[in-house]
Amino acid sequence: MFSSQRTDDDTDGYAEMSDRMFALAAQQPGYLGVETVHSEDGFGMTVSYWENLDSIRNWRAQAEHKIAQQQGRTGWYEQYKIRICLVETEYSFDKAD
Amino acid sequence: MFSSQRTDDDTDGYAEMSDRMFALAAQQPGYLGVETVHSEDGFGMTVSYWENLDSIRNWRAQAEHKIAQQQGRTGWYEQYKIRICLVETEYSFDKAD
Repeated sequence: MFSSQRTDDDTDGYAEMSDRMFALAAQQPGYLGVETVHSEDGFGMTVSYWENLDSIRNWRAQAEHKIAQQQGRTGWYEQYKIRICLVETEYSFDKAD
Repeated sequence: MFSSQRTDDDTDGYAEMSDRMFALAAQQPGYLGVETVHSEDGFGMTVSYWENLDSIRNWRAQAEHKIAQQQGRTGWYEQYKIRICLVETEYSFDKAD
């Protein structure tokens, strides 16, 4: 789970890098899916789902992703929190069911 | 973690109930905090943090919250997923540090 507050810095390739990271994550071993939502004030939450902790560690250490992380800290993000979580239970509701 | 897709149904007290649920959750034993973000297309993520599974179970069973859940299913939500997760590790970054 990645909760972030953006800076006002929109001019240096953030959108392209963000798109690239979603595409790259989806190609990694153990990737299960992602949910992401951003508000207009620059707060965002992105939750990516993975098979196990090793998949998460590998993604965290992926070379191109490491560069993105570094650019995130120097430019794009005011603050962020990363939480590594174990999904214990899942419920779903679908009106169409 | 509550990931939801709203219906177009904005006319029947959703905003008031949502405000009320945030306020009520914050009064429950074991409540630690919340993060929430919604996009304009009606997708939202709300993550509330709790001390332990018992706190989560109590909140889920709270009487007024049960009524809200029921109204959510009949009216406000097209789909939702609830995931009960254990936070294993947490990292934070703050540019001001």
